[in-house]
Amino acid sequence: MAAESIGHNCGLFGIAGHDSAAYLTYLGLYALQHRGQEAAGIVTSDGERTYIHKALGLVNDVFQPEVLDRLPGTSAIGHTRYSTTGSTTILNTQPIRVNYQAGTLSLAHNGNLTNTPRLRTQMEREGSIFQTTMDTEIILHLVARSKAAAVEDRIVEALGQVRGAYSLLFLSKEMLVAVRDPFGFRPLCLGEFEGAHIVASESCAFDILGGAYVRNIEAGEMLIIRKGDIETRRLPQSVTSHACIFEFVYFSRPDSWIYGEKVDKVRRRLGKHLAREHPTEADIVISVPDSSNTAALGYAHESGITFELGLIRNHYVGRTFIQPGQERRDHDVRVKFNPVEGVLRGKRVIVVDDSIVRGTTSRLLLRMIRDAGASEVHVRITCPPVAWPCYYGVDIPTRKELIAAHKNVEEVRDYIGADSLGHLSLEGMLDAVEGNGDMCHACYSGQYPVPPDDDLSKEALERR
Amino acid sequence: MAAESIGHNCGLFGIAGHDSAAYLTYLGLYALQHRGQEAAGIVTSDGERTYIHKALGLVNDVFQPEVLDRLPGTSAIGHTRYSTTGSTTILNTQPIRVNYQAGTLSLAHNGNLTNTPRLRTQMEREGSIFQTTMDTEIILHLVARSKAAAVEDRIVEALGQVRGAYSLLFLSKEMLVAVRDPFGFRPLCLGEFEGAHIVASESCAFDILGGAYVRNIEAGEMLIIRKGDIETRRLPQSVTSHACIFEFVYFSRPDSWIYGEKVDKVRRRLGKHLAREHPTEADIVISVPDSSNTAALGYAHESGITFELGLIRNHYVGRTFIQPGQERRDHDVRVKFNPVEGVLRGKRVIVVDDSIVRGTTSRLLLRMIRDAGASEVHVRITCPPVAWPCYYGVDIPTRKELIAAHKNVEEVRDYIGADSLGHLSLEGMLDAVEGNGDMCHACYSGQYPVPPDDDLSKEALERR
Amino acid sequence: MAAESIGHNCGLFGIAGHDSAAYLTYLGLYALQHRGQEAAGIVTSDGERTYIHKALGLVNDVFQPEVLDRLPGTSAIGHTRYSTTGSTTILNTQPIRVNYQAGTLSLAHNGNLTNTPRLRTQMEREGSIFQTTMDTEIILHLVARSKAAAVEDRIVEALGQVRGAYSLLFLSKEMLVAVRDPFGFRPLCLGEFEGAHIVASESCAFDILGGAYVRNIEAGEMLIIRKGDIETRRLPQSVTSHACIFEFVYFSRPDSWIYGEKVDKVRRRLGKHLAREHPTEADIVISVPDSSNTAALGYAHESGITFELGLIRNHYVGRTFIQPGQERRDHDVRVKFNPVEGVLRGKRVIVVDDSIVRGTTSRLLLRMIRDAGASEVHVRITCPPVAWPCYYGVDIPTRKELIAAHKNVEEVRDYIGADSLGHLSLEGMLDAVEGNGDMCHACYSGQYPVPPDDDLSKEALERR
Amino acid sequence: MAAESIGHNCGLFGIAGHDSAAYLTYLGLYALQHRGQEAAGIVTSDGERTYIHKALGLVNDVFQPEVLDRLPGTSAIGHTRYSTTGSTTILNTQPIRVNYQAGTLSLAHNGNLTNTPRLRTQMEREGSIFQTTMDTEIILHLVARSKAAAVEDRIVEALGQVRGAYSLLFLSKEMLVAVRDPFGFRPLCLGEFEGAHIVASESCAFDILGGAYVRNIEAGEMLIIRKGDIETRRLPQSVTSHACIFEFVYFSRPDSWIYGEKVDKVRRRLGKHLAREHPTEADIVISVPDSSNTAALGYAHESGITFELGLIRNHYVGRTFIQPGQERRDHDVRVKFNPVEGVLRGKRVIVVDDSIVRGTTSRLLLRMIRDAGASEVHVRITCPPVAWPCYYGVDIPTRKELIAAHKNVEEVRDYIGADSLGHLSLEGMLDAVEGNGDMCHACYSGQYPVPPDDDLSKEALERR
Repeated sequence: MAAESIGHNCGLFGIAGHDSAAYLTYLGLYALQHRGQEAAGIVTSDGERTYIHKALGLVNDVFQPEVLDRLPGTSAIGHTRYSTTGSTTILNTQPIRVNYQAGTLSLAHNGNLTNTPRLRTQMEREGSIFQTTMDTEIILHLVARSKAAAVEDRIVEALGQVRGAYSLLFLSKEMLVAVRDPFGFRPLCLGEFEGAHIVASESCAFDILGGAYVRNIEAGEMLIIRKGDIETRRLPQSVTSHACIFEFVYFSRPDSWIYGEKVDKVRRRLGKHLAREHPTEADIVISVPDSSNTAALGYAHESGITFELGLIRNHYVGRTFIQPGQERRDHDVRVKFNPVEGVLRGKRVIVVDDSIVRGTTSRLLLRMIRDAGASEVHVRITCPPVAWPCYYGVDIPTRKELIAAHKNVEEVRDYIGADSLGHLSLEGMLDAVEGNGDMCHACYSGQYPVPPDDDLSKEALERR
Repeated sequence: MAAESIGHNCGLFGIAGHDSAAYLTYLGLYALQHRGQEAAGIVTSDGERTYIHKALGLVNDVFQPEVLDRLPGTSAIGHTRYSTTGSTTILNTQPIRVNYQAGTLSLAHNGNLTNTPRLRTQMEREGSIFQTTMDTEIILHLVARSKAAAVEDRIVEALGQVRGAYSLLFLSKEMLVAVRDPFGFRPLCLGEFEGAHIVASESCAFDILGGAYVRNIEAGEMLIIRKGDIETRRLPQSVTSHACIFEFVYFSRPDSWIYGEKVDKVRRRLGKHLAREHPTEADIVISVPDSSNTAALGYAHESGITFELGLIRNHYVGRTFIQPGQERRDHDVRVKFNPVEGVLRGKRVIVVDDSIVRGTTSRLLLRMIRDAGASEVHVRITCPPVAWPCYYGVDIPTRKELIAAHKNVEEVRDYIGADSLGHLSLEGMLDAVEGNGDMCHACYSGQYPVPPDDDLSKEALERR
Repeated sequence: MAAESIGHNCGLFGIAGHDSAAYLTYLGLYALQHRGQEAAGIVTSDGERTYIHKALGLVNDVFQPEVLDRLPGTSAIGHTRYSTTGSTTILNTQPIRVNYQAGTLSLAHNGNLTNTPRLRTQMEREGSIFQTTMDTEIILHLVARSKAAAVEDRIVEALGQVRGAYSLLFLSKEMLVAVRDPFGFRPLCLGEFEGAHIVASESCAFDILGGAYVRNIEAGEMLIIRKGDIETRRLPQSVTSHACIFEFVYFSRPDSWIYGEKVDKVRRRLGKHLAREHPTEADIVISVPDSSNTAALGYAHESGITFELGLIRNHYVGRTFIQPGQERRDHDVRVKFNPVEGVLRGKRVIVVDDSIVRGTTSRLLLRMIRDAGASEVHVRITCPPVAWPCYYGVDIPTRKELIAAHKNVEEVRDYIGADSLGHLSLEGMLDAVEGNGDMCHACYSGQYPVPPDDDLSKEALERR
Repeated sequence: MAAESIGHNCGLFGIAGHDSAAYLTYLGLYALQHRGQEAAGIVTSDGERTYIHKALGLVNDVFQPEVLDRLPGTSAIGHTRYSTTGSTTILNTQPIRVNYQAGTLSLAHNGNLTNTPRLRTQMEREGSIFQTTMDTEIILHLVARSKAAAVEDRIVEALGQVRGAYSLLFLSKEMLVAVRDPFGFRPLCLGEFEGAHIVASESCAFDILGGAYVRNIEAGEMLIIRKGDIETRRLPQSVTSHACIFEFVYFSRPDSWIYGEKVDKVRRRLGKHLAREHPTEADIVISVPDSSNTAALGYAHESGITFELGLIRNHYVGRTFIQPGQERRDHDVRVKFNPVEGVLRGKRVIVVDDSIVRGTTSRLLLRMIRDAGASEVHVRITCPPVAWPCYYGVDIPTRKELIAAHKNVEEVRDYIGADSLGHLSLEGMLDAVEGNGDMCHACYSGQYPVPPDDDLSKEALERR
């Protein structure tokens, strides 16, 4: 819940070889809406020309039937963008489509590059112009500047120059290219639907079509989908995978496969490990719906304490407005959650949540739970304290705002008003993801697999 | 889930004695949005004049800050209307405001009258005109025709002539009147917020303000709220309460009080009784989220079988559109629900749901669960089969469409593709609501507390 | 120009016997848009049922193709409503459709009744309710209360009880009824298109379809159009026609027939008479476009002084907004009109306009003309000073606001900054309309053909 | 009128040194709306940052108060874009804003370059990417590639490489640059308002603010406005001015100054010369409103034949829709114009118009005039036949569509159904513009001052 103040990722969907390419991309983006609610875009190709539509708004508002009718073709890529505070304009939506010497190329990006400022300065010195503030644009410049003949070689050459996090979908008139950076920071997987190849950030986008999950796209892997065939390449920069662990903790839907793993399984193990590390006497375990449901269930099963529905979430979207003098955060918590008094009254309650960011939301929620009659409130978080910024595409508040950067666990416990507070340890968290190899846990540990350029301050980052 | 094809009710909210009457009514309606998503309206009074705004759309779309600014005053009533298929126009929104000899009177109604056609014909014969197709309008005609002097006496006299289901909120310049019909078909309760009296269909509308639940408004009770005082009266037509039991089964939010009872408690007992009546060997219990969650938990606790999250629900609203040739219902089920394969694969699954209406949705959902690998699927429904129309404000499909009107349980089981199917018995359901006295269960039993007029066919009913 | 601060009328259009009834009514209303820009509505009948759509906004915004598709039938009536300042809501749009003992009846009204308060009070005493603040609703109540059997007899009976100004279109399932009040205050005429009978406030609505003007509908005449036949009746209250002369001066389009006369001919005679009554030495005659163009041309021809285009009008609609501290009227004049310096510089200019209402707009316009270099500015108005309110459907500012109610011509001349000011005399104006019999000129003369009820103050009038 | 099927230009407005820069630019664009109704955009600078907003739609829809509030600063440039059929998307709106090595630069362009394809191909070969299909983007690439230090020097260097028509407004954080190409194809003039320098395509944009016209910006002149000072430079490519004569004939508003000349004066002379070249016996002269009004008046004065208002134009904007089977052009003519029968009946009519393009509109209009009773119809056009495409920013239909490219005057006369048809001769037209030096009349004569590149077909042109 508290993780909601952590910016979501973006969502990617692509398809090649289907007569309803635009429509299916629309559905795929709809299933990925939780990864970005601010803007959406689709580019299609009919082999001769490409067609684009993008706008601010939810997928369902941006793509009406008459809009999809103007997007013919058998291949498509789509992007859904997460919401930052006001900085996004129509000019910063994706995919970006450009013309260059080899024709037309479109690109959708999830992630964040770490050597942007240096590259950009250098290219500007050579006379380039930039029309957006997105680092994605740099990749297209590099592709255009490549001396290679084939589009895929151009892409490989371009990616050799950028560092950081990127899951990318390229669409030219003839082909769709899907690629994950060598560290595999952000997810991307391959599926199949009615003979067409499909790719998406999470496999839940395949399910909505009735499509099948095929496999994870590996870190550093590039898929070239052309005329029904898939060719696989490896980016030359070979490293160990460092997939973002926060996808398991919070971002991804539990019904999705990411990194070759089912999210709900990992999330349940997070709950179980948490129960082992931070047991306590209590009457019930409740979750902060919906993102913590699975982990709370894991905690309950492991601890043997009864799982209950102690908070009801209001799912009607659209921000309610407040009156002058009201406090926005207080209002938002009350509009979004309602405690179930019959469940909580007189009970010792374990609240399983996925993070504490600023602490303010947790504090308000706990007050609400106590007002509903809980006699004790024990907070259990399915990951370590978030104390460091992310340079790989997750919009975490600045260190100044992160409560864990300034207070120890006991101080945080006191601030949010819990009877006890337990975070899953880094070891416990890594153990829960088991065979997934190395993962990126920089936001918890401060250990950055790819150090950002010196001149890359958090604020200079285009948040994606 | 399947109950979603049963038309929701409307939601009512009223407040008297608060400077932010319109804003608080807006918030209250937002919390009651699950009772009606088609239209919303608010009337306010500042003691001198009344102000109205109503429109088609969700509460959050209809009421923007600049709209609320045009609704001054310290008392207000609001209405949110459920969605039928296209028949509703701006002309059929509520509250209705009229001028008559005693001034201005506004009315919001949840329920359905049963002697409408006769009354209407009679009034038309006497020269009356009707500007809507809502039976609510009839009540206002009767109030206007009353020879009584006081508004409250006019209302009592008017209500003496109508039969059927009505929870009503009246607003004149000077007072707010809340009343439930003598059978108490539809809910209405009283609360308090910062010294102001508030009334609502469900208490969750109090919680969103930070207000307190005070008590149920009794069947046949009329509250007159005027200058800070509440006066209580009883409608003369004394009968036993027959509150709609479907509110417990499906309509109301689990965090609400209705009829003086906490919904989540009753719903949990429905699940427990169901477990006792229809036990089976299985590995897991899953719910069709969100409306069956609490009952599924009850079933799991009673049976000792593990509760799991086997279906993920997509909460982004706005109907996705389909392509020509696609089947709407099939599409909708897949967009709304995604099975969690890791939970279901190889498992014997008990699916707890709140009703089977036409059977088509259940069939599609079960196929999805089986495709995700469930080895057995046992369906348990928290109420008896719905086989009869409702004349009291619930929009149930015609008998022709109700699968239970034509097939026995075994045939339905076969149709939806379940390994077993069990419905909670009428006795079990009534036992679960315990001390709530007589309840209306006509949609299950065909026993109508108030027989409709001869000329009142289901189709002639204005569905509310 | 100045007349723009005088509220326009409403526009009526009806058709019977054409498969494209709704579409043609939409076009007709579009041509009548100058009579009302605030709201528009259409009711159609297919003989079995009636269909309605109405909303705030311009005709072109209210009626989109998908909306017209929901308005089947072969007969229709439509209404376009003029803009007052904010008071109009969706509840006060027309046509009004009601159900009553004889079925469904819809009504569109142009004009204003003068015995509303008395009738309304009396009906309320008898138990009637009113859902709008439009006096049109009263007529429907009277029709419903009539004991007559035939709809047309009911209408005659109802109209026997109301006084004032009304051009009306009624639509029942079976017939369309068009009627003008016995004084014929507001225009209404009959046309023909592809075998269908059409009626409209002005004949320009026939031209847009390619239809033909047939004749004026007489004061006190009622046309009953049913199954292709037209039946004519006369209202029993026989009087001399008193058609509103302001329609000739300003409201109607010059290409229209009203009252059996071509507007442009009358308007040209107004200009000619004005030239005879108020000659002056000057170099050029200019008009305040577009409403005074024809009269200015008449003035020029009669006087022999050259007609020039000295003011350009910006036709892009939609009110521009102002910044804090700016003066709205000053801004509006400058946005709407731009003087042509090359025409005006060093010239003695005669400005022909159709009225001076508050004087402020004229003053600003004259300053603009002088700033463009005019050496002398002589203002000529095509009618006498407007000094009295209208009770028959024209929204004239209160006497307090009318400059002519407080200042004599010399004082007004001084206020607006003209070198000379001449108004056409009442005699001259009446002479210009020639054979049109008696006309209503109450706003100039204070002579009211139908005295309003004692309790009918200007402010109490629902302005139509 | 017929000229309406010739695509309009774009409109430019800029201001430097005023606290209400965005608001005043909005007003200026509103006055220039006739030059482009498809999209509008504004960029502002506060010296530290620049701010942008652009969208499809009319100026009044694109810029609401809350939008202008997000455009702070004391300098601004704005652009209004004309409407082609559907090809324009949000991606092709202006101004374009880019980042490059020297900071941020925004550009608004009216005109069309003639060496685009060659430049673009060359730049793409060097690795550049293009995000729009507008040739304007090329100019920004050239500025970015310049090795010069100062922005103004970069611009001069860039413009040295492009050929064709351009009136440009550049905005950087520190300065506003206004420039016309060496041929001065498109207009641009300088004004003053409350101490701020203002520039616009036409001076009517100054008048709406209450600003003053100062002077024409010369062909090949560049103004650099910085910290309140204006510096003037000349582009090195010295040529004779060849301003577009069609601006006088049709595009510009008669109340504007362009090229240092008052439009209404020239347009009146066009009418007079036309009267001398093509006299005929007739009763009245009418104009096709509003664009031919001034010329018609000139014809009338010169010929001594009475000027009349024979056609009324419906000014309500928004395209009316047609029914299946209807003919769009026929419908549009009837919706837009209505003949005044009283003026036309029995008369020999001279119709003064500004062009015949395809001939279809003229034919429909003439039929309408004859149906209204005109006994003879003589068409007089204020320019020679339009027979050649424009490469300098005017969207003229292809030669295939231009009636004058295939038929001689007699054949056109026959086609449109006129009794006689006379075009002003090229000499007559040039004589009417008098001291304006050489002008571009390529669309009439086929004499192109700047020959387009070989590979520049009309269809390849991005129409501006």
